[in-house]
Amino acid sequence: MSDTNLTLHTDKYQINMMYAHWLQGSLNERAVFEAYFRKLPFGNGFAVFAGLERIVSYIRALSFGEEEITYLRAQEENYKEEFLEELRKFRFTGNLYSVEEGTLVFANEPLLCVEARVFEAQLVETAILNMMNYQTLIATKAARIKQVAANDILLEFGTRRAQEADAAIWGARASYIAGFHATSNMRAGMMFGIPAKGTHAHSWVQGHDSEVEAFRAYAESLPDHVTLLVDTYNTLKSGVPSAIQIARELEKQGKRMNAIRLDSGDLAYLSQMARKMLDEAGFPYVQIVASNDLDEGIISNLKSQGAKIDVWGVGTKLITAADQPSLGGVYKLVAREKNGGYEPVIKISANPEKVSTPGFKSLYRIINKETGKAEADYIALKDEQHIAKGERIKLFDPIHPYIHKYIEHYEALPLLKPIFIDGELAYELPGLEQIRDYHLKQFEWFWPQYLRKLNAEAYRVNLSEALWELKRELIQQHQL
Amino acid sequence: MSDTNLTLHTDKYQINMMYAHWLQGSLNERAVFEAYFRKLPFGNGFAVFAGLERIVSYIRALSFGEEEITYLRAQEENYKEEFLEELRKFRFTGNLYSVEEGTLVFANEPLLCVEARVFEAQLVETAILNMMNYQTLIATKAARIKQVAANDILLEFGTRRAQEADAAIWGARASYIAGFHATSNMRAGMMFGIPAKGTHAHSWVQGHDSEVEAFRAYAESLPDHVTLLVDTYNTLKSGVPSAIQIARELEKQGKRMNAIRLDSGDLAYLSQMARKMLDEAGFPYVQIVASNDLDEGIISNLKSQGAKIDVWGVGTKLITAADQPSLGGVYKLVAREKNGGYEPVIKISANPEKVSTPGFKSLYRIINKETGKAEADYIALKDEQHIAKGERIKLFDPIHPYIHKYIEHYEALPLLKPIFIDGELAYELPGLEQIRDYHLKQFEWFWPQYLRKLNAEAYRVNLSEALWELKRELIQQHQL
Repeated sequence: MSDTNLTLHTDKYQINMMYAHWLQGSLNERAVFEAYFRKLPFGNGFAVFAGLERIVSYIRALSFGEEEITYLRAQEENYKEEFLEELRKFRFTGNLYSVEEGTLVFANEPLLCVEARVFEAQLVETAILNMMNYQTLIATKAARIKQVAANDILLEFGTRRAQEADAAIWGARASYIAGFHATSNMRAGMMFGIPAKGTHAHSWVQGHDSEVEAFRAYAESLPDHVTLLVDTYNTLKSGVPSAIQIARELEKQGKRMNAIRLDSGDLAYLSQMARKMLDEAGFPYVQIVASNDLDEGIISNLKSQGAKIDVWGVGTKLITAADQPSLGGVYKLVAREKNGGYEPVIKISANPEKVSTPGFKSLYRIINKETGKAEADYIALKDEQHIAKGERIKLFDPIHPYIHKYIEHYEALPLLKPIFIDGELAYELPGLEQIRDYHLKQFEWFWPQYLRKLNAEAYRVNLSEALWELKRELIQQHQL
Repeated sequence: MSDTNLTLHTDKYQINMMYAHWLQGSLNERAVFEAYFRKLPFGNGFAVFAGLERIVSYIRALSFGEEEITYLRAQEENYKEEFLEELRKFRFTGNLYSVEEGTLVFANEPLLCVEARVFEAQLVETAILNMMNYQTLIATKAARIKQVAANDILLEFGTRRAQEADAAIWGARASYIAGFHATSNMRAGMMFGIPAKGTHAHSWVQGHDSEVEAFRAYAESLPDHVTLLVDTYNTLKSGVPSAIQIARELEKQGKRMNAIRLDSGDLAYLSQMARKMLDEAGFPYVQIVASNDLDEGIISNLKSQGAKIDVWGVGTKLITAADQPSLGGVYKLVAREKNGGYEPVIKISANPEKVSTPGFKSLYRIINKETGKAEADYIALKDEQHIAKGERIKLFDPIHPYIHKYIEHYEALPLLKPIFIDGELAYELPGLEQIRDYHLKQFEWFWPQYLRKLNAEAYRVNLSEALWELKRELIQQHQL
């Protein structure tokens, strides 16, 4: 049973369509697909793109091995043997463009674009969405938490409640991109170089004859990182006093206890009382870590109640994005090869927001040179030259086009970077610290009203005039 | 970068506690931990246990390789080299008992029990919970969906919105256990032998000059499994008429079209109109597949509105358990080795429902021999003999003990099966079809009032009198 080859990590309809293209002889026709989402998650003002590193390694490793071929042969009697032979030769030979991880992104703009033989572009849809949707969702959730605790230490603690093993590690990585400081997951620490943190469980205390003996044994073992969990029996009567005793013993050895951890009860009250007890005992440096079903709402409430918490351990609600556990990213055909060129295509829907924007496109972030701030994200057809030339552009709302303005002195930053060209990696994958720094710098571009986590002002994602005309034309054609 | 060795798929505090036990010389002391959840998910009357197969392969493969050791050495300067040497020798040598996959289970009963050196029992907590929590959650969600569409075909379509790759495949498997018929994920199909199903995407239609040409090309390619997606442009004006034309062409070749698929719009109305059009055209056998953000609530509503849908493709809301994306399973120390025996231990909490039940225990399902129905699940200390002897037992509510009854003619089915004994696999892993059958048979044991998906009567999970006394005593001891 092979569970490391992700080549068949795709929906059956993709293989069916690959088969039908092969049978029709259209497998080598080129197609352009774009991945995007239609609505920002959590009502947030922005999302944080993540998943690219995982997608890159997925694409590089694509290959139908003997096990996959044998399975396909048995699974679908309609598949001809020559098709399976074609699959044996399969590798990704196309182009992939993507926004970089850590970028602040918005609804209805292309985040990732695959330009390839339709045979290849179809196969990769499912896995790309699976990875992009989850990692972007968690990075965005983590950014919301970061927003309410900007100066505190944030720990990702969610593995036991994550939706299986991959979610735990890729979710830890996504959280780190968005500004978390560490994870409890050792494998994520090893794979990605994220700092791994942890203390002890209630079972450590239960496994000793008294709380203070348990604490002492732990402090002797890891004297440089002593954080003690104080709520196994009674936080204020037993846990905190015992921790203070250990802090005293550590001082005698010339060491300083790091922190105590609260994992249940009224965190506002308990943290205030514990802070007072620690301060009065002469341990103002001992920090207070809190955990227990936290999210940005609860942290924000605790702060407004004056909770004395320095470090937040956030688990379940981060790693599952509990209030909205999926990002509805889609992957739509926008152009297909016809008569040697690309013909733009559209997907019509009775639901206006589901109508796709046709054509092979570029995405720019328009920075006003005077303010240094982003005015809009601007989507243009790939062959439009006016942006590169710095010509005056009209920014208008695609739903209500009479709302518009012109902008002249701008810098247009192309957001879709070439990742694969002709199947070869054309991108140097940045290190995780670099992604984190890049993510943080993004915020300087935006006025704060666009970044609020509730009732944010909508940041403009605009279409070029030519693209808007094309979309109108295609809608009209399909309505004849 | 190794991502297949799951040995470090654990929280750092587990390794810290292992280290502290090693340093104290208590690493070989035996401990008993139990995994359970405190509250049924989704307000459902029962849960469906899943995750054991994955947990078994995880435990069998546990091993600290060179990469793990090197990482640990660099990650924590407090770890001594001799500890790392101890880890090199690590393998699971303990006992593991578990409920079988597919079993209907309830809150506050042990689902899985690890009896091992504390050194081992601590390491495996995080991964066991990660796997059990997610897979049990999804199997339970799938069972709810199955309940509202008991006679229909159910397809799991969630990969693109799943929380990363593992969730997609293990979620597909959990859904299949609970009665789903197929998955769209080919890798899940290959790994587990689940039937894989799929048709074509909107892009197939967009990639052709007309809808009918697209349909014809698809039908020529896979003539034995023709399901056509009819909502790319206009479902009733173009999609269904084009599908009918293809159904006619297939009949001329002596073939029958399988189905049409609706993926947007008003599914009640569209399915009724499409059914009428298909019937009037002479294709009563062409089924209707529906998808688009379905869950048990929407399916139930559509059915009450008279929707004519034969097959349900359920994606996002199943694979993420959208209305409650985590199961709060915990893993608690219940006994520890002391003076050559086991001393029961308790975890006290200010929140009464968080107080653990101490002791090394057995779990029985008490079947009334007259009705053949389950009266209660009954938790007793492992050394209690009265159950095995078939003696009269008192069933009483552990919160309100005056509510009680006696039962005499019963069969007591032990639910916790030995899975590993002394580190050796002692259990023959059943095939997936066998698990599915076993799951289905479970329902015969229960009166329907316990199985409702809303406002179910609470099924009794009772403690033996001796266990209840022990719990009271330990609570009192800790309150002195």
